[in-house]
Amino acid sequence: MKFGYFDDQHKEYVITTPKTPLPWINYLGNREFFSLISNTCGGYTFYRDARLLRLTRYRYNDVPCDTNGKYFYIKDGDCIWNPGWQPTKTDLDFYECCHGLGYSRFTGKKKNLQASVLFFVPLEDNCELQWLHLKNDGDAPKTFSLFSYVEWCLWNADDDMKNFQRNLSIGEVEIEDSVIYHKTEYRERRDHFAFYGVNAPIDGFDTSRDAFLGAYRGNDHPQVVEKGACSNSVASGWSPIACHQIDLTLAPGQEKSLIFVLGYAENPLAEKWSAPDIINKKPAKEILAKYQTDAQVEQALSALAAYWEDLLSKYHVTSSNEKVDRMVNIWNQYQCMVTFNMSRSASYYESGIGRGMGFRDSCQDLLGFVHLIPERARERILDIAATQFIDGSAYHQYQPLTKKGNSDIGSGFNDDPLWLIAGTDAYIRETGDFSILDEAVPFDNDVSLAAPLMEHLHRSFDYIVNHKGPHGLPLIGRADWNDCLNLNCFSAHPGESFQTFGPSEGPVAESVFIAAMFVKYGNAYAKLCRLTGNTSEATRAEKEVAKIYDVILKDGWDGKWFLRAYDAHGQKVGSHECEEGQIYIETQGFCPLAGVGVKEGLAKEALDSVKERLDTKYGIVLLQPAYTRYHLELGEITSYPPGYKENAGIFCHNNPWVSISETVIGRGDRAFEIYQKTCPAYVEEFSEIHRTEPYVYSQMIAGRDAAFFGEAKNSWLTGTAAWTFVNISQHILGLLPTHEGLSVDPCIPHDFGDFELTRKFREGTYHIQVRNPKQVEKGVVSLRVDGQEIAGNVIPYVRGKKEYQVEVTLG
Amino acid sequence: MKFGYFDDQHKEYVITTPKTPLPWINYLGNREFFSLISNTCGGYTFYRDARLLRLTRYRYNDVPCDTNGKYFYIKDGDCIWNPGWQPTKTDLDFYECCHGLGYSRFTGKKKNLQASVLFFVPLEDNCELQWLHLKNDGDAPKTFSLFSYVEWCLWNADDDMKNFQRNLSIGEVEIEDSVIYHKTEYRERRDHFAFYGVNAPIDGFDTSRDAFLGAYRGNDHPQVVEKGACSNSVASGWSPIACHQIDLTLAPGQEKSLIFVLGYAENPLAEKWSAPDIINKKPAKEILAKYQTDAQVEQALSALAAYWEDLLSKYHVTSSNEKVDRMVNIWNQYQCMVTFNMSRSASYYESGIGRGMGFRDSCQDLLGFVHLIPERARERILDIAATQFIDGSAYHQYQPLTKKGNSDIGSGFNDDPLWLIAGTDAYIRETGDFSILDEAVPFDNDVSLAAPLMEHLHRSFDYIVNHKGPHGLPLIGRADWNDCLNLNCFSAHPGESFQTFGPSEGPVAESVFIAAMFVKYGNAYAKLCRLTGNTSEATRAEKEVAKIYDVILKDGWDGKWFLRAYDAHGQKVGSHECEEGQIYIETQGFCPLAGVGVKEGLAKEALDSVKERLDTKYGIVLLQPAYTRYHLELGEITSYPPGYKENAGIFCHNNPWVSISETVIGRGDRAFEIYQKTCPAYVEEFSEIHRTEPYVYSQMIAGRDAAFFGEAKNSWLTGTAAWTFVNISQHILGLLPTHEGLSVDPCIPHDFGDFELTRKFREGTYHIQVRNPKQVEKGVVSLRVDGQEIAGNVIPYVRGKKEYQVEVTLG
Repeated sequence: MKFGYFDDQHKEYVITTPKTPLPWINYLGNREFFSLISNTCGGYTFYRDARLLRLTRYRYNDVPCDTNGKYFYIKDGDCIWNPGWQPTKTDLDFYECCHGLGYSRFTGKKKNLQASVLFFVPLEDNCELQWLHLKNDGDAPKTFSLFSYVEWCLWNADDDMKNFQRNLSIGEVEIEDSVIYHKTEYRERRDHFAFYGVNAPIDGFDTSRDAFLGAYRGNDHPQVVEKGACSNSVASGWSPIACHQIDLTLAPGQEKSLIFVLGYAENPLAEKWSAPDIINKKPAKEILAKYQTDAQVEQALSALAAYWEDLLSKYHVTSSNEKVDRMVNIWNQYQCMVTFNMSRSASYYESGIGRGMGFRDSCQDLLGFVHLIPERARERILDIAATQFIDGSAYHQYQPLTKKGNSDIGSGFNDDPLWLIAGTDAYIRETGDFSILDEAVPFDNDVSLAAPLMEHLHRSFDYIVNHKGPHGLPLIGRADWNDCLNLNCFSAHPGESFQTFGPSEGPVAESVFIAAMFVKYGNAYAKLCRLTGNTSEATRAEKEVAKIYDVILKDGWDGKWFLRAYDAHGQKVGSHECEEGQIYIETQGFCPLAGVGVKEGLAKEALDSVKERLDTKYGIVLLQPAYTRYHLELGEITSYPPGYKENAGIFCHNNPWVSISETVIGRGDRAFEIYQKTCPAYVEEFSEIHRTEPYVYSQMIAGRDAAFFGEAKNSWLTGTAAWTFVNISQHILGLLPTHEGLSVDPCIPHDFGDFELTRKFREGTYHIQVRNPKQVEKGVVSLRVDGQEIAGNVIPYVRGKKEYQVEVTLG
Repeated sequence: MKFGYFDDQHKEYVITTPKTPLPWINYLGNREFFSLISNTCGGYTFYRDARLLRLTRYRYNDVPCDTNGKYFYIKDGDCIWNPGWQPTKTDLDFYECCHGLGYSRFTGKKKNLQASVLFFVPLEDNCELQWLHLKNDGDAPKTFSLFSYVEWCLWNADDDMKNFQRNLSIGEVEIEDSVIYHKTEYRERRDHFAFYGVNAPIDGFDTSRDAFLGAYRGNDHPQVVEKGACSNSVASGWSPIACHQIDLTLAPGQEKSLIFVLGYAENPLAEKWSAPDIINKKPAKEILAKYQTDAQVEQALSALAAYWEDLLSKYHVTSSNEKVDRMVNIWNQYQCMVTFNMSRSASYYESGIGRGMGFRDSCQDLLGFVHLIPERARERILDIAATQFIDGSAYHQYQPLTKKGNSDIGSGFNDDPLWLIAGTDAYIRETGDFSILDEAVPFDNDVSLAAPLMEHLHRSFDYIVNHKGPHGLPLIGRADWNDCLNLNCFSAHPGESFQTFGPSEGPVAESVFIAAMFVKYGNAYAKLCRLTGNTSEATRAEKEVAKIYDVILKDGWDGKWFLRAYDAHGQKVGSHECEEGQIYIETQGFCPLAGVGVKEGLAKEALDSVKERLDTKYGIVLLQPAYTRYHLELGEITSYPPGYKENAGIFCHNNPWVSISETVIGRGDRAFEIYQKTCPAYVEEFSEIHRTEPYVYSQMIAGRDAAFFGEAKNSWLTGTAAWTFVNISQHILGLLPTHEGLSVDPCIPHDFGDFELTRKFREGTYHIQVRNPKQVEKGVVSLRVDGQEIAGNVIPYVRGKKEYQVEVTLG
């Protein structure tokens, strides 16, 4: 069952009922000012940091679900309604929500009045524009009142929901002309304020929530709207809000537009005040002045569209499969941008206050983002590297506002160092920009300890070399990629962090997964050394990689699949010898992907075991059999009920690893089958089961052991976005950036048909035609560049060359 | 305007409309199992620790206000209503909420059906009983359905509202007979679970919130209730709830009672399971078995009533002033019990997750509680003392579940050590139990560092002696009693703690307030030394006190009032020389109370200055003039808008200090005038302005500089309760426990009239008649004990004596 449809022409998902199984959201904003907005206008806004600089208040896990946001109430006689349905939930004669690239548009109709509101964050300013169009579709004049509504957050979103003995006494606002200024704590240490204005005179305002809603009332039934008249309340403490009232009369057929601007402004310390207790509003007024006319907004919207058109032109496919085209050309890349911006901080499941940017997360996100805006990827790599410790380990998370590592979680996730190599390698392959390796980057955010980025990669590499266990496999530390596999923790009491309680690190527990990563990214490191002329280091690195490769084959193979780990007692994890959790997905995905066991035939055997033991109709589960009880020696993974999350859920992130591995051994049908199972464009068909947004990936789909098999959770912010884009773009469609140039080596379903790719890579645009006359799954038999037959799979990169015509024949 | 009335006979406050200005709550539970319950059945339940073991979920600062709690829905035909009005808010034909001592009773009537539900926590068990009575008041049979509803919290209340990527996947329940068991995380590290049962067969149940409410619906409109039929949902992840459905038919006049039990149970590790994945329900069933019949519940209720009758018999007054009698005999003592139990952790303003027990807070709370249950006071003193450091300083807060000091806030609040002396001294004066001083008590929770409690007091005393500033006044550290006066902090950026940012402690900033405390509690310490035979230490202590006394007179006096402090630059705080904040209340209250400046006439001058500069019709504000801008050198106090909180709000806690000081200089009229201004029984008359509960004190009333002068905030958990009880019971009514015996020295309004006191003190009951034929404000001219005239004010304590007949004449 579907609740909307893809409009590929406009690059929108059009939701046709407000009653989606869960709120279906979009992200507005590209760099520093962001909004989350649901299909019923729920959500919130923040500047740079969802925890520390939250502009508007949201209530997670509230009932009714998703009832704070940016609302317009229309009072038309006795009928009160919202164009986005919530929060009054008045039945509409027409409802539509179009989530587009960086904007969302809501259209509601009721009693011959049409209200359409477009939300977006312009590229250049720290504000959200709300462009409202009202139209009288009837044949009589219409007189009605419009009320805007946002509830301010008192900046720190965590403190905002706890510290009431203070917070209920500090709220402050100013009102001037048609603009409401929220200035809580500006009197003291803040140099910033928020504002909410409209390009028209107002007939009233409210800034006190209690005055607006009335006692014991919700957003669904505000007293002021019911009365049809604002009370011009000036908040002093309690909960400040912003509401504008505009009374309107429209003749039959008449239209009216209004521009609301919700923004953020800062002042230098010396210019904070224009008079005692009166804030200097200049920076806000400058923004407001830029969005006074429809033409100005139109222009900002065009600029946003052009921005996205340019970004998406970096990778474009035209095939006979519209679902693949849709995901590759629009939604998968769009989600990669969002994960790049947000890491795992703020979604409808990530509250924006729990964790900042993840070291591992952000490095992986780069893999799917680096082709879009390489300059920003470059900046991010340097930010991340600056949170590395001198021994090569790294803060597991850092706060986006300060860019400092978070001491509460610290380091000790032993895969982290290698992800820095992964991200840097991807950046250099994409751009050819080796200069990044020479950038001086601090360790532990301490500039006095700065060293070239190449040295950081060296430390990453050596961290693994220097931290091996009894079998010569890498020590796992607190956890590797799977944050929930905690082999050194032994937490027996609630409230303890599964990751940081107890010893957390130990000399025995080893990770086969990190070993596979080491093969892949150790080789990448060696290649960077070689390309930068450090032959001896390259050779040393290759030898270290070879050592680990051999250890994986010797002590990382369980007979039919790869082991997952050895625990702190030296016992196998993910072995047929285990009572539960006999086979894990991660090593079956990452070993072949890293080239481990391919030539020995183990890769194929492992992937066959995945199909036999882990596959389901909704995707591949993380492990089997699910853990039915808590294992002290394994940690958080066994804390989940069977079928959820890491305990045998379909953890989407690692499904593409398996799909990629299938392409490594040439099985295009199977690779695509795996791709398809979790692919939003396919999942859309059964949205009533899947429930989360059908245009983006979710972190997890409940596995077959769960009560609600097939139900997804935690949409949007997942490494699945990046890895799936890597899978479909580089491995299935087969266009892989290498140091030497673009490699073309598709691995597709035999019946996928011919297809075209357009790829902007460094200075060139590549127009690539792929023909598959023999319906093979893999194998380039002919590669012609600008009419010339080329040996191998790599289109030689020619500095400065703008256009490449490429013809590829499989067979 | 009033919203109810005091029923002194039943010791209840009867609320007659659900639409109180704010939710008006009560506390259920006495030792370990607690519920907060509002006048519309809102609130939540926890076991021991409101942060770590929260049974039911609450949403602070929600809209509509206060819409999670323990609800009964009645579906009577098309009419759906709740006996407590919320959350359906269906208009009732009759509504009444009676908050009594440890119980609350709600009665609603609609369409000839009466539903009355009594909530209380029995003395002996970890459960809340909900005793429901239904009666058909009409003349036709009535058939209707009853639905119970609670929403489970996933135990850790802080994590519960943040960590959705985990929490939405872990919810688990079991249903057996009429009992719903909430067992989230029981599979792993928890050995406890919650349960909710009823003593009758059920016609259905729901445990999934989404199934019960329906999509996009709130508590006001559950789908299941609307349909009239539960869906028998079994929660798996998302939000587990508990709902029982019971279908009923009542003949005209017929009554029916039901007993619901909401409880907490633990199992030993070895007995966690009765079968794989099935919890051992034995401890829950034992509790449930105790509350199956009305007689059983009746008995538990009687026991609770007897418990309170006994407690309140410790201090009882009969005067011609019913408001004084009401507060002294019922509500002030009741609030003292609640503050003792809760410290500042869980109220409708304290979220229960922000801070644990306060060192200073809990010591002060003892002052009003110690006479009620001295044994619990003793235990608390030892708990608190164990969080003291070896240098005499102390953790400022500790977690009630673990009793460990909180490292995030640490120590450095330089008044803290002296409050330990205050609490211990009050306990010994009350009980004569000097053995407490010999108890071995750890330092810093480390038993290897244990030392006798007397040694802890010694370290407390010496901490002040060893931490003095340039004038010889005590250093203030992070802050003294006024947590917001931060003289060593200099926080310039949001998000920094005003108390712990920067140096936090320094060698210059001094507190006159701590100096006054040192005089009072230093003398108390000296006396304890003398009474335990340590004469040399007593003499040394008295000398140290005398030194500080002299310094206060020399460098702590501003000319017309006492200075408040010297800041880190050596500048005066609370001086006529200051631009803002020229006079503070704290030192004017505490110096005379400690005896400082009384004989020199400064006390009177200071108190006159208070009346002239700080007094308002709603109470005495903390300072004047209010700070209009942020002062880096003063800290948080200047962060509040003028008139709120410490920045010139009426901070109720220190009003009784001033009132006590007035009794010290014999001004009974003025002392009582101050008492009266913030006294709930008086404040009740203008509840529409005051807004918080009219039966308990609030932390703060907005001062005259605020927009909403007279509006109270943060009711219930405030040191005001203890200090006001000390004031009215020991100083105004004048019955002060001393080491030698009860001292009688009333200081009353001249027209207060004669009165009687009953006081249980140690083994004796004192029946005291006070006559004031000459209408004086103070001065005992005759004291007769059992017919014998006694010299002085102290009734000599006679070990083992049971009854004392005391006649007192003022003149």
